[in-house]
Amino acid sequence: MKYKTPAKVEIIAVGSELLAPYYRDTNSLYLTERLNALGFEVAFKTIVGDNLDDLRPRIKEALDQADLVLATGGLGPTEDDKTREAFAAVLERKLILDQEILKKIKERFRRRHISMPGSNRKQAEVIQGAVALANWNGTAPGQWLEVGKKKIVLLPGPPHELKPMFEESVWPRLQKERRGYLARKILKITGLTESRIEMLISDLYPKKPDLRITVLATPGQIEIHLTSFSPDSAAEAEKKIERLKKKLLSRLDKYAFSESGEELEEIVGRLLRKKKQTLAVAESCTGGLLSHRLTNIPGSSDYFLEAAVTYSNTAKAGLLGVPPALIEKHGAVSFSVARAMAQGIRKRAQADYALAITGIAGPGGGSPEKPVGLAFVALAWQTGTEVRKSLFLGKREQVKFQSTQRALDMLRRHLLRPEKKGKRDENFYRHRSG
Amino acid sequence: MKYKTPAKVEIIAVGSELLAPYYRDTNSLYLTERLNALGFEVAFKTIVGDNLDDLRPRIKEALDQADLVLATGGLGPTEDDKTREAFAAVLERKLILDQEILKKIKERFRRRHISMPGSNRKQAEVIQGAVALANWNGTAPGQWLEVGKKKIVLLPGPPHELKPMFEESVWPRLQKERRGYLARKILKITGLTESRIEMLISDLYPKKPDLRITVLATPGQIEIHLTSFSPDSAAEAEKKIERLKKKLLSRLDKYAFSESGEELEEIVGRLLRKKKQTLAVAESCTGGLLSHRLTNIPGSSDYFLEAAVTYSNTAKAGLLGVPPALIEKHGAVSFSVARAMAQGIRKRAQADYALAITGIAGPGGGSPEKPVGLAFVALAWQTGTEVRKSLFLGKREQVKFQSTQRALDMLRRHLLRPEKKGKRDENFYRHRSG
Repeated sequence: MKYKTPAKVEIIAVGSELLAPYYRDTNSLYLTERLNALGFEVAFKTIVGDNLDDLRPRIKEALDQADLVLATGGLGPTEDDKTREAFAAVLERKLILDQEILKKIKERFRRRHISMPGSNRKQAEVIQGAVALANWNGTAPGQWLEVGKKKIVLLPGPPHELKPMFEESVWPRLQKERRGYLARKILKITGLTESRIEMLISDLYPKKPDLRITVLATPGQIEIHLTSFSPDSAAEAEKKIERLKKKLLSRLDKYAFSESGEELEEIVGRLLRKKKQTLAVAESCTGGLLSHRLTNIPGSSDYFLEAAVTYSNTAKAGLLGVPPALIEKHGAVSFSVARAMAQGIRKRAQADYALAITGIAGPGGGSPEKPVGLAFVALAWQTGTEVRKSLFLGKREQVKFQSTQRALDMLRRHLLRPEKKGKRDENFYRHRSG
Repeated sequence: MKYKTPAKVEIIAVGSELLAPYYRDTNSLYLTERLNALGFEVAFKTIVGDNLDDLRPRIKEALDQADLVLATGGLGPTEDDKTREAFAAVLERKLILDQEILKKIKERFRRRHISMPGSNRKQAEVIQGAVALANWNGTAPGQWLEVGKKKIVLLPGPPHELKPMFEESVWPRLQKERRGYLARKILKITGLTESRIEMLISDLYPKKPDLRITVLATPGQIEIHLTSFSPDSAAEAEKKIERLKKKLLSRLDKYAFSESGEELEEIVGRLLRKKKQTLAVAESCTGGLLSHRLTNIPGSSDYFLEAAVTYSNTAKAGLLGVPPALIEKHGAVSFSVARAMAQGIRKRAQADYALAITGIAGPGGGSPEKPVGLAFVALAWQTGTEVRKSLFLGKREQVKFQSTQRALDMLRRHLLRPEKKGKRDENFYRHRSG
């Protein structure tokens, strides 16, 4: 088993608009994923504005250090589009007008009953020696060029032009240069802090570069990204990642809810569907987020019946039948009211299960006894209820999200339990640090 | 009025994890925004992995071409953290152990009752001639270094360490080098397609580089980002942007709902609060998203009373009092049911206003007469109702979002109307292309 010399890849994104503070990169993430799948590692990413003085030295640098250079953007018809010109200058090659491409661009305009503006002519210019790559979704063709052992690919900037062009014209060419096989898995975990997960799994961190673990933490959810690489076969990459995944899952136990990137609402939906059970929801502080998440899943109308978002106490009484005296005695954010909300909506909707959330999302409304982030989450089923008290950290939206994670996870765990008879009523107090 | 020579800035992000396909950059966007505010334009952004062979040539290139180089990440204590070493090598300067910093790092560990691991020692190393920048949120100090007229800043990678350090130690130093004054505005628009907006405003696109317009389109919302630059004063930048904004708003009319980046739910919330009016919501296809958006606004409990998410027909009857015969006759997705839902929840909640949405979010459930994306949105108030029929394009979540935009915008426009007596009942059919 020998490794091929790893090929270094650079992605250059061209465009001054990419240097603005609101720019969200998607092209390079997409290209990275596809290149990784072929065993190519991206070593450099560069963003440069549309001017020759800035572009030329960066292209030269890229061609010095990388074996494969992909440039995106700057292939348009305007003055600002300099990518073709800059590459030609650095390579000391001519730009040649390709009559075939010019004809296609003219046709494209004719179909829209417009005559081609003169400026579009330059889109038919190809670097000497390059192959033009067809663009079915725009006027700018891409280019594929081999210079010695180096490969250069020019792609248009708009994602809906870039992606189909990459799949159709670049992927097959790169596949011949494949460096290996990559497998990926994403484990998702809720109910554990990042540091707790570190403690549980850090001794499993792979020592060799052909296996990688990256932990991404957000409040309420931790993702463990696994990557395995085999120079020889997809099956081997798959085998290695499966082995690592099993070891990790044995440590993470019931806290891991997903092995292939699914969200908690998908997992819960699948379990409900499998058991042919229905769900209703009552929300206070989460204001509809739990219901929104559940209904993001196509086909959720098969198991999701209804939700009541009861922000006011009147609504808690009117829609859920929570006795006003109960609210008066314990407060709207309390163990008893959470339970009554779950029981109330379950009864009203005639659902098998009900989830209810009441809490203080902040930033206002907190007190020393009931601070911002306090939430009671209740699950009701035919023969019992379970209520959990939590204190979530973070801003309003983070408290909302974590509360819905807790609710979905309580239902998930309940649905995974072996069937039990009798009533169950628990009260956990868990102070969350994450 | 003369422009200073624009200073070229490069941001280098260091870390192999930043070259993975799931990486979302936030540091460089934050830095860009702050640098722009001081009149600095970012000319290059580079991402490089943690190895000296890749780092050195990129740092050299950056120092050749940029006047200000900010590097983020790679200041940790591990083998992989190479930023200090790489900069020192390129600058041909020594790394010097700073006893003061070492003491602080040791103290930090002592406070957590841990003794400092030997590897953290290297975090106290400073490039000869550099000033160490205090890090109150982690162990790695930053560094500020001037080499001739060039400025170099090393910052830690974690955003919660980078941002406070930038604000406290980098911003005041850069302010002395200020190149000018920048003003920004974000106009948000709903109810118009991108191409329609282009038609309305393209003749207003500024010709000079000191004013810029960028249009960002997503289904249901278009943002127009305005930037103005003055080499002389903040007031002048502000004046220029105000002038441009006014011209744009006169064209965009009531379609523009926000001038300072606020979301539609904030605008609607503010109007309700001002008029001391309350709102209740009934949702079918949007499944709680409208309610979730409304309750994302702190203090929304002042005007938002309750929502019923009625996915099932039983729930539409039970929670909203929609007559089953009406559903049978017109279907759950219909003008009449939308109106009945709005009237039903308004009555139940005793609210001043009610919004209701019923539609087909897809991907399933469509038919030739009632295709995926069809939505009826109803607004009910004391003396009338208004229902609008729309056909939204896009995936499930996009249909959901666009439906909630339509609902919020109907209420916004109603709240902005001069008071009118009498009943109003409209039925628009708008086929949306965006």
